Amino acid sequence: MQTEVRYYQQPKVEKPVMVCGLPGIGSVAWLAVNHLQKELKAELFAEVFSPMFSPKVWLTEDGLVKLMKGEFYFWKNNGNGSDLLLFSANEQPYSPEGQYDLADTVLDLAQKYEAQRVITMGGMATDKVAEPPKVYVGGTEGELVKELEGYGAVKLAGGAITGTNGLIFGLAKPRKIPAICLLAETPGYLSLDANAAKSALQLSSKLLNISLDLQALEKQAKENANAVQKAKDLSRGAFLHEPRKGERELPYVS
Amino acid sequence: MQTEVRYYQQPKVEKPVMVCGLPGIGSVAWLAVNHLQKELKAELFAEVFSPMFSPKVWLTEDGLVKLMKGEFYFWKNNGNGSDLLLFSANEQPYSPEGQYDLADTVLDLAQKYEAQRVITMGGMATDKVAEPPKVYVGGTEGELVKELEGYGAVKLAGGAITGTNGLIFGLAKPRKIPAICLLAETPGYLSLDANAAKSALQLSSKLLNISLDLQALEKQAKENANAVQKAKDLSRGAFLHEPRKGERELPYVS
Amino acid sequence: MQTEVRYYQQPKVEKPVMVCGLPGIGSVAWLAVNHLQKELKAELFAEVFSPMFSPKVWLTEDGLVKLMKGEFYFWKNNGNGSDLLLFSANEQPYSPEGQYDLADTVLDLAQKYEAQRVITMGGMATDKVAEPPKVYVGGTEGELVKELEGYGAVKLAGGAITGTNGLIFGLAKPRKIPAICLLAETPGYLSLDANAAKSALQLSSKLLNISLDLQALEKQAKENANAVQKAKDLSRGAFLHEPRKGERELPYVS
Amino acid sequence: MQTEVRYYQQPKVEKPVMVCGLPGIGSVAWLAVNHLQKELKAELFAEVFSPMFSPKVWLTEDGLVKLMKGEFYFWKNNGNGSDLLLFSANEQPYSPEGQYDLADTVLDLAQKYEAQRVITMGGMATDKVAEPPKVYVGGTEGELVKELEGYGAVKLAGGAITGTNGLIFGLAKPRKIPAICLLAETPGYLSLDANAAKSALQLSSKLLNISLDLQALEKQAKENANAVQKAKDLSRGAFLHEPRKGERELPYVS
Repeated sequence: MQTEVRYYQQPKVEKPVMVCGLPGIGSVAWLAVNHLQKELKAELFAEVFSPMFSPKVWLTEDGLVKLMKGEFYFWKNNGNGSDLLLFSANEQPYSPEGQYDLADTVLDLAQKYEAQRVITMGGMATDKVAEPPKVYVGGTEGELVKELEGYGAVKLAGGAITGTNGLIFGLAKPRKIPAICLLAETPGYLSLDANAAKSALQLSSKLLNISLDLQALEKQAKENANAVQKAKDLSRGAFLHEPRKGERELPYVS
Repeated sequence: MQTEVRYYQQPKVEKPVMVCGLPGIGSVAWLAVNHLQKELKAELFAEVFSPMFSPKVWLTEDGLVKLMKGEFYFWKNNGNGSDLLLFSANEQPYSPEGQYDLADTVLDLAQKYEAQRVITMGGMATDKVAEPPKVYVGGTEGELVKELEGYGAVKLAGGAITGTNGLIFGLAKPRKIPAICLLAETPGYLSLDANAAKSALQLSSKLLNISLDLQALEKQAKENANAVQKAKDLSRGAFLHEPRKGERELPYVS
Repeated sequence: MQTEVRYYQQPKVEKPVMVCGLPGIGSVAWLAVNHLQKELKAELFAEVFSPMFSPKVWLTEDGLVKLMKGEFYFWKNNGNGSDLLLFSANEQPYSPEGQYDLADTVLDLAQKYEAQRVITMGGMATDKVAEPPKVYVGGTEGELVKELEGYGAVKLAGGAITGTNGLIFGLAKPRKIPAICLLAETPGYLSLDANAAKSALQLSSKLLNISLDLQALEKQAKENANAVQKAKDLSRGAFLHEPRKGERELPYVS
Repeated sequence: MQTEVRYYQQPKVEKPVMVCGLPGIGSVAWLAVNHLQKELKAELFAEVFSPMFSPKVWLTEDGLVKLMKGEFYFWKNNGNGSDLLLFSANEQPYSPEGQYDLADTVLDLAQKYEAQRVITMGGMATDKVAEPPKVYVGGTEGELVKELEGYGAVKLAGGAITGTNGLIFGLAKPRKIPAICLLAETPGYLSLDANAAKSALQLSSKLLNISLDLQALEKQAKENANAVQKAKDLSRGAFLHEPRKGERELPYVS
C-alpha cells in the first residue's frame, strides 16, 4: 500500500493560497484550519490515505468507519482576496519518513493548483498563558517575514520547528513556493488552545485579505479559560500539567 | 523479500462473504474464525508470507518447521446461505506499515473472488465479566449497522479500532466492499476468551444465515470461567491481571 | 544502498550441503561454522553487504577497515561426503525485515549452487551446564528429523526459533530445500559456548559423513569451564549472570 | 520523497581529496570540516536532502527557514597540494539505513569527481583531557596507515567506528577509493571539542600538503578549557558529565 491522493472533484481555483494545519502542540494549527473550513464552508475535494498513519480506524456516532487520512478543501473567493486550498489531517504520520512523505504529497498538490503561497501554523509552547498570545513568523523569504511583521507578528529568529507543519513549510523552499509558518504562543498544558488558534488566524486573515468571523473560537477559548481557572482553584500550588492529553491523540507536535 | 500469497488451489466460490480474525484482545477474533474453520471443515487454499511478521519460526509436535503466516480457507455452502472465505494469521504484523500491507493483501484476495461482504471481529476490553458479552457493531454503511442491530448488536457510536482487524474493515470502504466489524465485550485479563468469541459468532451466523455448532467454544468458556473463579478464590482482594499472556504471543490488539 | 552479494569466484561444487551459523545465544552457530571453515580450510568466494547490518565498521589489528558483512565459503570434498557451502556473518541484521532479507539472500545462493540440504544451528538456553549438551533437531521433513534422531539428536517438539538462523531454516521449506536446525543446550550466561558448538558439529559431521578434528573447540571449552568455575568459587551464592556479554556484540539470538 | 543531491554548480576540480565530517562525539569531525571550509573559503556547490534526516526545519536569525541537509563544498588549490571536496551535514541520519544511504550518496559524488582519497574524522571518547589529544588512524590500505603514522598518528589496532563517518570510510573500500579515518581523543563530556578538531586537522593538513591557520580553533579550545576549569572549581568531587549536550543536537556519534 502506497500513499495515495483520491480526488472527488477538480476545483477551479485561481492562484490560490494554501493553508495547512495538522495536529500539534495545543492543536493550534488543526483548530485554525478547521475553523477556516467551517466558517468559509470550504468544500472537500480530495483525501490522502497512507500506511504512514497509525494502524487504526475511527467510528462516527452513527457507527460508520473512517480511516486515518488527510483532507483537502477549496474555497472560491468572490471578493478581492485569494482563493484558498486547505489541508488538515487526523494526525501527523507516526514515522519521520512518513512526515516527509506527507509534506511532499501536500506540496505536489499545491503545485498542481499553482498555489502562490503556502501558510502553515503551529503552537509555540510557553509556561504561561499569554493574553493575547504572540504569533511568531518564519518564512522562505525575507519579504514575507517583513510583511507579517507589519501585521503584528514577531520574527522567529532561530530555533527549530518539528513535525509535518514545519516540513511543509521548509520543503516549499526548494520548490520555490513562497511560504510562511505562524507559531502562536500556547501554554504546554492545553490540548486544544482555541485562543492561540484565533491569534494565528487573525494574522492569516490579514495576509489573505479575508474577513473572518472568529466567534466560535472565542467561545471555545472562554470555556477553556474557565476550565483552567477551576483547576487552578482546586490545586493551588500543585502541579497543573495533567490535562495535557485531550480526547484526541496528538502523536507529534509542531 | 516481499509479501507474497501462495495459492494451493483456486476455490470455486460464488459471491462469498469473507470472515477475518487475527489475534487481538482476548483472541476473540482469532478464536471465532478458528472455530468457524473447524466446525465447517473449511479448506485451506492459500497462504500469505511476509517479512512484516516476526522474524521467527514455529515447530510442530513432530519437529516440523512452520513460518509465521496468514491462511485463507474457503467453504462451499450447500444450503441457502453464503459461500465463505476465511482469513486468519498466527499474529498481527509487528509494524504499522506491515498491518496496512497485510490488510490490503487480504482485500485484494477478497476482490479477486468478488466477496460481497467482509466481516471482521475483535474484542472490546472492559473491566468486568459480562454474561452474555454484548457485541458492538460498526459498518461501512448505515444499512449494515441497522441489520446487525436487528440481530441484537449494539451500535458502536464512536471510538477507535486498532490493528489489522480494524484496517481490513476500514480499507474495505474505499474499495466499496460492504464491511462490518463486530467487537465482543471481554475482560482485559483473559488471553483466550471463548465466551466473547461465541457471542461474536452467534451474530455472524445470523448475518450469514448459517447454523453453527458452538459447543466447543462453550466448553472452553466454561473451563476459563472455572480457572478465573479459582484464581479469584486464591487472591481475594489481590490483583488479577497476571494471566493476560497466554501460551500464544499476541503482539497487537484490536 | 541495497543488499548486495559480491562474488570473488564461482566455486565448482556438486550437490553441496550448505551449513549456516550466525551469532546468537552462546554464539553456538557462529563458533561451529567458524570451526568448520578453519578445520576444512574452506575458501571464501562471496560476501554479502547490506544496510540492514549495524551502521558501523571494524578495524583489524593492522588498522585496516572492515564492513559488517556475511561471508560464503566453499569446500570440495575429495572423500565420500558432500561438498560444502558455509555461511556466517559478523552479526544478525538489526531489523526484523533485515533478517528476512538476509535469510532470503542466503537461500538464493543455496539454490544457485543447487544445494541439496541446508543445516542451520543455534543455542537453546538452559539454566544449567549440561555435559554433554543435548542437541535438539527440527526439520522441514519428518525423514530428516528421524535421520538426526538416529545420530542422537532429540526431536524439537514445539517452541519457536527466533532470528536469522531460524528464518534460513524455515524459508527453505517453501523453496523445497530439505533443511534442519540443530539447537545445542547452552547455559544462558556464556557468550562463547565452545562445548555446545562441539556437540552441534559432532551431529552435523555424522549427517555430512565428514570426519572432523574438534580439538580447538575442546580446548576452548575447557578454558571456558575453568573460567566459569573460578567465577563460581568467587561468588558462591551470588548471581552468575553477568558475563553474558562477551567482547563481541550479539544483537539477536537464535 | 527520496534522498536527492541538488547541484548549484559543477566545480572543475582535478583529482581532489574529499574530507568528510558529520556531527559526532565532541563534534570533532564537524568542527574540523567547518573550520576547513571557512579558512579556505571553500565554495558550496551541492546539497543533499533526505527523508532520513530528522523531521524538522531550522530558522536563521533573520527568520528564514532551512532544511536539515548535507553540504558539499569545493576548493581549488593554487599551490602544490590537492584540490578539495568537503562534506558535512547538520546531523547524522536518525536511522541505520539512513546512515548507509547517506554514506553511499557521498561516495557517489566522490567518484563522480574522481576523488583520489577520502578522509573522514571523528572523536574517540576518553575520560580525561589529553594535551595534545592523540590522533588514531585507520585505513583501507596499510600504506595509508603508515603514511599517517609518519605524521604522528597512532595506528587504530582494533575496535569499531559507529555512524556515518565510519561508514563513508568503510564503504570507500569496495569502491577502491583509498580512505582513512582520523579519530582524535576527546573527553566524553565536551559537546564541541575544538582542541581535538585542531589535532585532527593538523594531521590532515600534512597529508593534504596544505598550510592552515588554526587560530580560530585554538581560541575556541582555550575558551572551552576555561569553562571546564570553572565547572571543576565549582563542583569539586561532584559529577562533571552534564554539559554533554550543547546547543546542537547530536543524535549519533562516531
